Amino acid sequence: MEFKSKIKTIEWVDNYSKMVDQTVIPYEYKFVNIKTGEDMFHAIKDMIVRGAPAIGIAGAHGVTLFAQEGENKFTNVEEFKSWLIEKAEYMKTSRPTAVNLMWACQKQIDLIKNSNSNIQGIIKELIQNSIKLENEDIEINRKIGDYGAEVVPKGATILTHCNAGALATVGYGTALGVVRSAYAKDNTIQVFADETRPRQQGARITTFELAMDGIPVTLITDGMCSYFMSKGMIDMVVVGADRIAANGDTANKIGTYTVAIAAKYHNIPFYIAAPLSTIDTSIKSGKEIPIEERSRDEVTHINGKRICAEGVNIINPGFDVTPHELIAGIITEKGILRPDYVKSIADAFVKDKID
Amino acid sequence: MEFKSKIKTIEWVDNYSKMVDQTVIPYEYKFVNIKTGEDMFHAIKDMIVRGAPAIGIAGAHGVTLFAQEGENKFTNVEEFKSWLIEKAEYMKTSRPTAVNLMWACQKQIDLIKNSNSNIQGIIKELIQNSIKLENEDIEINRKIGDYGAEVVPKGATILTHCNAGALATVGYGTALGVVRSAYAKDNTIQVFADETRPRQQGARITTFELAMDGIPVTLITDGMCSYFMSKGMIDMVVVGADRIAANGDTANKIGTYTVAIAAKYHNIPFYIAAPLSTIDTSIKSGKEIPIEERSRDEVTHINGKRICAEGVNIINPGFDVTPHELIAGIITEKGILRPDYVKSIADAFVKDKID
Repeated sequence: MEFKSKIKTIEWVDNYSKMVDQTVIPYEYKFVNIKTGEDMFHAIKDMIVRGAPAIGIAGAHGVTLFAQEGENKFTNVEEFKSWLIEKAEYMKTSRPTAVNLMWACQKQIDLIKNSNSNIQGIIKELIQNSIKLENEDIEINRKIGDYGAEVVPKGATILTHCNAGALATVGYGTALGVVRSAYAKDNTIQVFADETRPRQQGARITTFELAMDGIPVTLITDGMCSYFMSKGMIDMVVVGADRIAANGDTANKIGTYTVAIAAKYHNIPFYIAAPLSTIDTSIKSGKEIPIEERSRDEVTHINGKRICAEGVNIINPGFDVTPHELIAGIITEKGILRPDYVKSIADAFVKDKID
Repeated sequence: MEFKSKIKTIEWVDNYSKMVDQTVIPYEYKFVNIKTGEDMFHAIKDMIVRGAPAIGIAGAHGVTLFAQEGENKFTNVEEFKSWLIEKAEYMKTSRPTAVNLMWACQKQIDLIKNSNSNIQGIIKELIQNSIKLENEDIEINRKIGDYGAEVVPKGATILTHCNAGALATVGYGTALGVVRSAYAKDNTIQVFADETRPRQQGARITTFELAMDGIPVTLITDGMCSYFMSKGMIDMVVVGADRIAANGDTANKIGTYTVAIAAKYHNIPFYIAAPLSTIDTSIKSGKEIPIEERSRDEVTHINGKRICAEGVNIINPGFDVTPHELIAGIITEKGILRPDYVKSIADAFVKDKID
């Protein structure tokens, strides 16, 4: 039985990008249309769209939007190409940690470089490639979900952190893709969702999308995970990823590493669910992953209201790196990679000639 | 050099209890006067006063307030006593986890039982005992602070969870008493304060009281602790306690256990700072400590605004239990107790004939 999700997070429509506005969830569920490359840069930066796979697609759309703007600026196709590649490189910088953004923008850059078409032809090809990447993303997520579902025990309670759901991808989700596939087989499973301060993606987005799809979800605060683990109430942890190094070290939303340590202490399997495009084989370990520093207001204010003394110091890393030794498996569209990750990751890329 | 704190959290004034209203911090710093036993019951329950040692004193004040109310109800001293003891037992139930509340109410019950005075005399003795307990609390905290300061490395960054500060005690604080004593010797130390969701005592109260006393403090979200530990930015953890079992297992604010596990993983010493009155030698291990379940709104709402999907499931344990094997030492007014805690705790009570 296939799980039907109600959610489509981002899609190319005619000549613009249509996306769910994630800044107003859970209060509203509405769409915004992004019509320029610069607007897409800010939609990514300001997290109107978020989640590593979804911002990959957003980046591909953004390059396509710039291409449409370039149509009236250039007659020479080579000048158009070099201007557009510069814009695509700029688009990559809208958020520094998620590698899917670089991967998808690079897919468009490769297309631009290799195309023999005229300007209109290149634009058409970029649109086609955007739609192809969208469809692939959903298909990949379904595969991740189905592989992951095989390791979900009957009646399991699955803890997740942040949102690696349909709303972090084009649809279906990575970590929550595993939940959806497992739920389709066994509707006695349930989810515990970490709030995920500072930006509360778990509280705002994960509870919202699971409620929308009718999957039981319990919201907990970030500090509570160990309590429920010690009570035997958590059977496994599944989270997404923003970048995975060649040795399996995984950058994900700040707080993930704390959950992974707690899971290890309680002997609870901790899984990453992510497409192979999240794996950056160019870096050996998590030490090389840049960690985005975000604004102090995310920590000091909630819904516009200050929650602490004025003038307090803040350091706000957006991500942390979970070392590979805490990870039971990396659930990908090619199956579950297991330690030793240096070997299993290299094998996954060689076998399938993934570029 | 002695550290001078600006804060006095609770004190007996003439015929009522004056306390800092902790529900409006950090927006306001104001006092409320509690004039009846029933109002004190609700001040404790609704956390106008919070922190294990402070609610102990509040309980003692509450019994005294009931005694004043009984003065007009009774002429027979034995009838007065048995009515008042019933009220004192009721006062103990205002919050179930912190043992200091039971301890301080029991101190008043013992006084009532053993007194040979008339009704007016008993009331006077209860007032005197309230003030004595207040003064002892500050003195005990200074001793805890001074013992604790001996294990704070030069220039250390100390992580704390929740608020075990001046505002959790009559003044000075337990965990933050250690900080104050250490800061008086070495003003290059600093504090990292966990936000402490759901009620954000770290963000609201710890940052407020440290800023008020001029001690540098950085606010972090609860999930971030492991990130900063892995970067070598945390030298030790010191937290308070709500109840400590005879084997050293320690109940404290929810989230403490997660921090303790993270500290262990990074080989960072994790200390409890608490008066001996927090140790409940009548229970063998943490398994016997009742964990208060609090309202779902604490998790689903912040400052009155919902932060998640409607109708989401909530479980809201107010405390967790950190097992003794994660605790490097328990800093008390009689020195730092070290493992084996069954022995060191028993010794502390025998040597000093603490009742």
